[in-house]
Order: sequence, then structure tokens, then C-alpha cells
Amino acid sequence: MTQSTDRAVTEVLNNHKGGSQIQTVWDRYEAQQPQCGFGELGLCCRHCMQGPCRIDPFGEGPDRGICGATADTIVARGLARAIAGGTASHSGHALHLVHTLKKALTGQAPDYAIKDKDKLKAVAARCGIEIKDRSSKKIALELVELALAEFGDKGEPLTWAASTVTAGRIEACDKLGIVPTSIDGSIAEVMHRTTYGVDADPINILLGGLKCAVADYTACHLATDLSDIIFGTPQPVISKANLGVLREEAVNIALHGHNPLLSDIIAQVASDPALITEAKKAGASEGLNVVGICCTGNEILMRHGIPLATSSISQEVAIMTGVLDAMVVDYQCIMPAVATIAECFHTKVITTMPIAKMPGAEHIPFDEENAVKCATAIIRQGIERFRSRNPDKICIPHESSTAIAGFSAEAIIGALSKVDADDPLKPLIDNIVAGNIRGICLFAGCNTVKVPQDYNYVEMVKRLLAENVLIMATGCASSAYARHGFMTSEATTKYAGEGLAAVLTAIGEAAGLEAPLPPVLHIGSCVDNPRAVDIATAIANKLGVDISKLPVVASAPEATTEKAVAIGTWAVVGGLPTHLGVIPPVLGSKLVAETLTSTVKDLVGGYFVIEPDPNKAVKALLAIIDERRAGLGLS
Amino acid sequence: MTQSTDRAVTEVLNNHKGGSQIQTVWDRYEAQQPQCGFGELGLCCRHCMQGPCRIDPFGEGPDRGICGATADTIVARGLARAIAGGTASHSGHALHLVHTLKKALTGQAPDYAIKDKDKLKAVAARCGIEIKDRSSKKIALELVELALAEFGDKGEPLTWAASTVTAGRIEACDKLGIVPTSIDGSIAEVMHRTTYGVDADPINILLGGLKCAVADYTACHLATDLSDIIFGTPQPVISKANLGVLREEAVNIALHGHNPLLSDIIAQVASDPALITEAKKAGASEGLNVVGICCTGNEILMRHGIPLATSSISQEVAIMTGVLDAMVVDYQCIMPAVATIAECFHTKVITTMPIAKMPGAEHIPFDEENAVKCATAIIRQGIERFRSRNPDKICIPHESSTAIAGFSAEAIIGALSKVDADDPLKPLIDNIVAGNIRGICLFAGCNTVKVPQDYNYVEMVKRLLAENVLIMATGCASSAYARHGFMTSEATTKYAGEGLAAVLTAIGEAAGLEAPLPPVLHIGSCVDNPRAVDIATAIANKLGVDISKLPVVASAPEATTEKAVAIGTWAVVGGLPTHLGVIPPVLGSKLVAETLTSTVKDLVGGYFVIEPDPNKAVKALLAIIDERRAGLGLS
Repeated sequence: MTQSTDRAVTEVLNNHKGGSQIQTVWDRYEAQQPQCGFGELGLCCRHCMQGPCRIDPFGEGPDRGICGATADTIVARGLARAIAGGTASHSGHALHLVHTLKKALTGQAPDYAIKDKDKLKAVAARCGIEIKDRSSKKIALELVELALAEFGDKGEPLTWAASTVTAGRIEACDKLGIVPTSIDGSIAEVMHRTTYGVDADPINILLGGLKCAVADYTACHLATDLSDIIFGTPQPVISKANLGVLREEAVNIALHGHNPLLSDIIAQVASDPALITEAKKAGASEGLNVVGICCTGNEILMRHGIPLATSSISQEVAIMTGVLDAMVVDYQCIMPAVATIAECFHTKVITTMPIAKMPGAEHIPFDEENAVKCATAIIRQGIERFRSRNPDKICIPHESSTAIAGFSAEAIIGALSKVDADDPLKPLIDNIVAGNIRGICLFAGCNTVKVPQDYNYVEMVKRLLAENVLIMATGCASSAYARHGFMTSEATTKYAGEGLAAVLTAIGEAAGLEAPLPPVLHIGSCVDNPRAVDIATAIANKLGVDISKLPVVASAPEATTEKAVAIGTWAVVGGLPTHLGVIPPVLGSKLVAETLTSTVKDLVGGYFVIEPDPNKAVKALLAIIDERRAGLGLS
Repeated sequence: MTQSTDRAVTEVLNNHKGGSQIQTVWDRYEAQQPQCGFGELGLCCRHCMQGPCRIDPFGEGPDRGICGATADTIVARGLARAIAGGTASHSGHALHLVHTLKKALTGQAPDYAIKDKDKLKAVAARCGIEIKDRSSKKIALELVELALAEFGDKGEPLTWAASTVTAGRIEACDKLGIVPTSIDGSIAEVMHRTTYGVDADPINILLGGLKCAVADYTACHLATDLSDIIFGTPQPVISKANLGVLREEAVNIALHGHNPLLSDIIAQVASDPALITEAKKAGASEGLNVVGICCTGNEILMRHGIPLATSSISQEVAIMTGVLDAMVVDYQCIMPAVATIAECFHTKVITTMPIAKMPGAEHIPFDEENAVKCATAIIRQGIERFRSRNPDKICIPHESSTAIAGFSAEAIIGALSKVDADDPLKPLIDNIVAGNIRGICLFAGCNTVKVPQDYNYVEMVKRLLAENVLIMATGCASSAYARHGFMTSEATTKYAGEGLAAVLTAIGEAAGLEAPLPPVLHIGSCVDNPRAVDIATAIANKLGVDISKLPVVASAPEATTEKAVAIGTWAVVGGLPTHLGVIPPVLGSKLVAETLTSTVKDLVGGYFVIEPDPNKAVKALLAIIDERRAGLGLS
């Protein structure tokens, strides 16, 4: 089986082939074959202790669970719980940021501050907070209280959702009764309605899932806003991506997970000359080299230009280079296997968060009250470990690509304003109307062991770019495009169709880059997907149509996590046709599958397109884009 | 297979044997055999789309999931999510009551009011709200806001937990870092830490589960308090239990589910002479007969003496009597199968709650703003259906028992105060010290299709009563004891050991009953389990020891739901050795199983005792009671 299309990853994996006892995610996947067919179809249920129950997909065995739940009910319940799991992740991430900003404002977390006052004011104003000549602190304190209220029983629509989407979206959600009034309450509601003997109506359960997904959107948007306020709104930055960013002569410390709260501080502390001197004294002539993995990597790439080592699926491979001295993790997408793999190398795996520990890892509790102190202690662990490297095990691939990142919505509007300062969206919209930009596709989501790493991403993007579709990317999608060289000016020349290339060249030149914008815009981490919504909402509002009419689509061609399920679901509610390249566990219910891929279209405009073949997926997405263009009267 | 030890249930099931096409829960259970061994052991995981993954319990296949999660991690994650599901149910139930009380206070729900002002004041005072000469409305409004804050990010320990347990419990939880600061936030935290790549440390995950369980306790206590405030605190009441309470000459309407919000109103409205006249006009010479099923049944039995028809596992059997004209359900423990079974009879199944619909049922949306109107419309549906009965299908068993219910903590203290008005707990404690009451056992939880209905309950209680163990019961446990005749004065004479019988006789006579108290005290529905904690806390505080030292144990010998998992877990955190008569899906991890049954004892005093054999379970519980008595220096 091809494990990865990333040559750096393949090189390291090949280096350990043969005698090696190392088991990676791909080995464990093979060991799991064949996987349970009931589970794959979503047809097993363990929501009470009378079970497990299984529905026979061939109609020869039981067609009901012990309680009488049908395949439709069971599949819908499973999907709703996945959305709840994803929403809970983003809720935790967002709440962590709210708490930290509050601590910063009240003097309890002195290492944090308001870095981006403009963003603070923009967010606060959008949320209805009075700005005038009030101090940033006062505004921020009010914003924090407003944010905290989103997690409890607010009794009214959530501010971060209601203030960031089109009126049409609010109306559609209202009509369906899927306007959440609490982030955590929506998670609880899904868990309640999916427990034994509550909701048995599959459509009603799915509506509960959609509502929870809107809460997920809320949490994501809140997290992005607060990260920008605390750490600065990303602006274009040039860096490198892939395992070649690891350096033999430096102490390599990888930051892995999702929340910038710790990693941003480590990124800052790593430039402390005293620590660099310590690293050199330990024998690392090039000092400290902080790199990123997964979405924590995206966060510090976007804000500090820290190089991105690799994505989530190949996190173990970073350790297998033999030069990773410490892997520091916060939470989400961290394979428990890293601690096991690290036993074969010198790498120290350091967990930091109270809710994410790991047998075999060292736990250094991170608290925001002592962030710099904690970050310093962590870096010192990496320096200490440098001495223990085994030269025989070193394998650093040369592979790495230039990657231009940092395309927050503000950065994109900023670049466009260089073309038309009075009306920045005009050049974008004009080119969409003219067909130079045929449409926009947001690539999001993970890698999955079920697809050779990045294969679907790369296959799809090549074709879409040639067809003049502008690409935005987040999460492991952006990592894939960064590592495969799609985030450079050269990529525009190489891959973009004529119309798109001309637009990107014009914007790039107007922005003073003396080169085209990259054809794939890195807009952030997974939690940053609302940045794409912000842009789509701005376009929709300017055109006076709803998002569900725009030639904008989304794709998660290698989705893995429950977070991806939640994000994909709110993308659909947001009006976006959303492609999934892996089959979610819903095929056990024709009703659920049809609802998600078809019926829901009439209700919210968005819907899922499930298509494992990347070429067919491209055709489907292009057809949708054209259908929507035609709907707007565009050729 | 023996399906039920309840003779009424058996009679109806036998009546439909043979030619009947009816499939009941027991038929569906047989059809599900053999059940998935991986699921039974907790060894399968579907928390991401790379799965499903399964760990080989025999050590011959995979010992890790694709992400590297071990059996320990997978089992712990599954258990934690079950606790989250249970907590979410009680959260939803409690929040619904809070919203309704708020609406009642602000004039939006005119059919509700503060029925028990003494309880309101007692709860408010306990929560630190000023009472003085403030109006009930003012006090209640403040209480409502305090209650709402429990669901969001409170930032401090939850009032309903912190104000109702011993100082020792708070200290134990604090030491373990399991003091929740939000009900719904605790659910979200479990969902977050159990998603792909977050918490991999099984012990840490279990601690998250314990924390969530404390949130479940909080929600339950809050729900009980608010139900008492709105509908009155239960006082001893004599009624009947079992299917014999259905009447051929009356319109029979069963109220099923958990929340009294609708059922209490229906219970009140059913005495409306106009509706009774309507029923008689429809041909029901005995008018209306409202009966209860499951915990909704317990709620209206406790407060109105409404007869209890049956428990959750036999809900279908109520329909199979052929005389149930309407089954009105709210949420939780409602088998989707009832709508299917109802197709073979004339019964109308009516769903009422937005989060609990059912294909095949009629949905009459219940809103608190128009509660009486809604209740009236529902009763009329039952009257309408009465005309459609098929006489050939009627089978009403004669079986029903007298049941004395209504033993809220206040009612128990009230009865004791007749013995010692100045110091009501003294007679109870003196008799525990003297050994007349050897210990107390709380029976809670469900029926399960895996045990012949009520078998474990009845076997265990007979032996425990003979050994002078006083019994409290909730939920389907109380239903079992009500139906099997354990909630009568005669049962004390028949089953209680000499010491216990003497105590119950003395209290009964002092209370003016001219007969002994029943040996099994019906303290409420599932959500009312904190009533037992209130009594244990009062005893502990009076003795100056923690609950974890008292000869008090709990048992859920026929547990089914995720709610039971949550309740059992907080009983353990509360210091109670807690017996489970069914094996939860944890045996795939020796670590998790040992932690729950042994290690946790040193941390919180409580622990699980897993023993399917009721006789062995009794022996184990008696040994624990004696060990605890010895610890207190009692013989």
C-alpha cells in the first residue's frame, strides 16, 4: 500500500523498513484489517448496556436494535454524537482562550496581552459592544463576558454566529429550529437526545446535529477571533514546509496540537539569546529550531513564520528522523502512538494540558499564569535531550518547500485593497463575474490512513486550479499544499488556469510582491475555517445574495476527526456544497445518506457530496460551481 | 428464556404467544444474539473515521487502535462518554425545569406556580440566598438565576453539589481535581478529551468521567429540588402498582418518560369533570384512568398517588393489554418500538417533546406556556381512541399490589420526627448503632433484558431485609418493589428481620399509621437519587464522619442506561460501594476494571462491586456493611 505521496515522509519510512520494529499508523491500519463492517456503516450501537446491537445491512438478520431503534435511528445517533465530539473540541479550545484573555486582563496571566487592538475593536463592534474612546481593556473585558455567556444558557441566539453570517443563513436556521443558544448546551442536547429512549426520529436527530454544528461554528469563530486579538491577526509570511526544515545542527523542538496558547509563547521564548546559548553549549551549533506539526504548526506558521514540519498523519515520522529532540503537544490529533515510537528514539514527548495526558510521555503542566516560565522549562527539556541523539538513527530528508502563509480574511482584503482601496472586494467579485475566477473551493480537514497521504488533496487541486478555481485551505489541507509546493508564486504560474493566473498576478503585483499570489491561500488552522465564511459572507452581502447561491464549495477529501464532521456539517448549513473524500459511517441508512446528500439542499442550500475518487469529485464540484454560476446568471 | 418475574407481565406476554406477530424487547434481544464481543468488552472505538478499530482481547490480534490507543484508553473513553450521555440527560431534564420555573415567575407559564414555599426557602437558604421577609417570587427568581449559572462556565464549584454534600466529599473531589464548574461544560470536556488524539491516559480519562458524574449529581439534585418547588415535595401516599391498575371500563392513559412538567399537569387535568364526562360519553363508564410508566410514573405516583402500571422494560406490554388508549411520552427510556407495537393495537402513542420524536407516533408539541391546553388535547386523544378498542385483544391481568410511596427526605425526617421531634435523626442513628438497622442499601437503576425482569431486585431485597438492611429505592427499582408488594406494611412483617421490623413498626406507630412503615422506601424517580444522598449526608454530619464510613451501600442490579452509569459513578464518588448486577463494557481493560472496583476506593471511599449473581452480591454488600460498621466501632 502507498502510505504517503509526500516524498519526505516516504524517505523516512523507507529508511526504517526491514529490520525495524517500529509500528506506524500505516502498520496499525493494516493490522486492523478487516475493519468491522457494522461500524463502517454506522450500524452498531452501544448507547445502553443492553447492547451492543447491530443491524444486518443485508436484511437477513435483525432490522432493529433491542430497544426497537432502526438503522436510520442508529446511524443518525452516531453521526450526531460525532458532531458533538467535534463541537466539544472547539468549545474547549475557544473557552481556553477566553479564560486566558480574562486572566491577562486581570493581571493573572502577565505573559499575555492584547496584541491586535484593531481586531479587538472590530470584533467588539461586530458583537454590539460600544467602542468610542473606551480603553482596550474595558472593551476586552466586556467582550470576554460576552464570550463566556456563549457557553452557558444564553437564552438567545449566539452572538458569534448571529453576527457573522448572512441574514439568509439566520432565516434558514430559524426556520429549521436549529439556532443554538448555548455552545456547551448544544453538545449536551445531542448527547441527551441520542441516549437510550429519547429521540428515535432520524431526521429530528439530524436536525439536532445541524444545530450542534452551528454551535461548533460559533466556537471556531470565537477561537479565531480571540487568537487574533491575543496573538495578532496573521499577515502574509514566507516560510518553509516539510521534514527538511529539521536541522541536524540545531535543537529541534516540534510543537504539535491545536491551541496557540502555549505554542505561541514557546515560539517567542525560543528567540531568547540565553536559551540559544544554552542550546549551543549543548552542542547544537545552530541553536534552537522550533517547528510546527498539525494545527498548532499552522498557528505559529501563520503568525511567526515558524516552519511546518509535517501534518497529523505523519507525526510519528517526525520522530523517526532521529533529530527531533522534543515533541511538545497540547491537544487534539495527537496519536497516543508518539510516546511508543519515541521509545525507539531519543525524542522526549511532553504533554502539557490537564485533559490530554499520555502514558509514556512526560507531563509538564502548562498554566497561563506562568506561561514563559513553562515554555522555558519545556525548551530546556529539548536542549537536554539533544545530547542523547543516536547518530545512526538520523534521517533528515532534504525535502522542503517554500510556503507563503498568513492569509487571514483581513490579509486577503488587505491585498485586494491594493488593487481597489475604496472597494477591496470589487476586483474579486468582478473577476468571479467575468469568469477569471470560476469559483472558490475551501479545502479543509485531515489526512487519513485510508488515503495515501495528500493524494486526494494534490490530485484535486491540480485540476481545480487549471479550471480557474481559487483555493483556500486550512488545517492539514493547508499543510499538504504547503509541503507540496502549492503555496508559492511559482505554483500560480505552474498550475493556475489563464484567468486565475492573471488575477493572482495582478493582485500580487498591486500588493508589491513582484510576483503572483499563491494559488492556494493558507487561511489558517482547522479552527480558522470561519475565515473562509467571513470572506464568503462579505462577497454574498456585497452581491446581495445568500452564500447558498455563490459558486463557493468546500472539500474535506481526507477527513478523519469528529471535528471534521462538525465543520463539514456547519459548512453545509452555511450553504456550501461540501465534498467528503472518505465515506462517513452513514451508509447503513439510506434515509440518512439521502438526507445529507440531497434533501438538506432544499432546506439550507448546502449538502454533502460523498466521492472517494478525486477526479470524479472534481467533476462534481465543477458542475456545482457552474450550476451556481448559472443560477446567478453568469456564464 | 424467562422474560419477567412479574406475573402480570408474563400473563400478557403469554396471551400473545403463538400466532402473534408481535415482537417485544425480549424477541429483539434474542434476535441480536450473539452480541458483539468487542463491544461487550468495550474494545471497539469509532471516535474517528479511520476506525472502526478493535483490540483483540486474546492478545492474538491488534493490541492498539490505528492512532495507537490501547485497550485501556479505548475502554476508558467509552465509559467516560457513557457518563457524559447520562449527565446530558439529567442536565436537559433539570434545565427544562429551570426554564419553566422562570416562565412561571415571569407570567409566561400561567399553569405553573410555586407549590411548595417551604422547600423553596429551604433550597434557597442552602444555596446562600437571603430569605428574611422577601417574597417567594423574589427568592425564586434569584434561585432561577443561580440555577441557570450551573449550566455555563460558573468559574467556581457548582452550588447544588457543594451545598449538599459533606465537607469530606468536597475535600476528596478537590484533591482529585474533579470539582466541576459547569454542568454542560463537564459534558463538553468529556467529549473533547475522548475525541481523536486528546486524552490517552486511561486514569486521567476516568477522572474526567468522575468529574462529569459529579456534574450529573448536581443536575439531578437541581431537578429534584425544582420539581418539589413547582409540584410539591412528596409525602407518603398509598396507591397501587402493576398492570392490574388498567381498567376495562375507563379511558386508560399512560404517562411515560421522566419529566413531571407535562405529566403533573395531565394528572391534574384528568380530574376535570368535563373531561370525565367526555370519557363517559365515549362509552367509558368509569371515566378517565391515568397511570404511570417508568420515572414519569414515579413522579406522579409520589405526588398524586397515580397508580403505576409498569416499568420501562415492560412498556410494550402495557400496550399489549389492549386497553391502553394513549401512551403519552416525554423523554428518556422510551423504546422506539412502542410505536411499532401500537400498530397492532388501538393505542395512540403521543410524543410531546421537541428532542424526542418517533416515527409512527403522533407528535403533539408540548409548551409550558399552554400546559393545561396541551394536556387537555392529549387526554382527548385518549378518549377518542377508546372507541377503537378491539375486545378480542383485551388482556388485563388482575395483578396489582398496594404501594406506599412518597418518601422524600423531608417525608422520612417527618416520620422520624414523630418519634423524636427535637432530634429526628436520633432514632435512626440509635438503631443503626444498636444494630437493629444493620445498614442501608439504595436500590436504583433500570430493568435490563439481560436479567429476567425484577429477578435480581427481588432476590436481593428479600435477603437484605432479612438481614435488617433498610432499603431505599428509586426509578425502576422502586417500580419493581412496588409491583412485587415490598412497599406495604405487611411486607415489613413478612420480610424484615426482627430488629428492622421493630424499628419500622415503632416509627409507623409513632407516625399514626397504626402499622409498620414499609421496609422498602420509595424515594422517587431516577433523578431523585440525591434524596438518598441528602439522608446519608445528614446522618454522616450528625455522626461527625464522612459518608464513606457509613454502613450505606448502593445497588443497580439490573442497570441499562447511560444515566445509570453516571448515577453509579457519582454514588462511588459520593463514598458509596455500588453494586452493578450487569457487566458494564469495561472488562476489556484490566486497568480500568481494577481502578473502578478497587483503586478508586483509596481515593474516594466508594467503589464498584460487579457481580451478576444476586446471592453473591448480597453477601458482598453485607460484608461491606459489616466492614464499615466495624470501622465505626459498631458490632
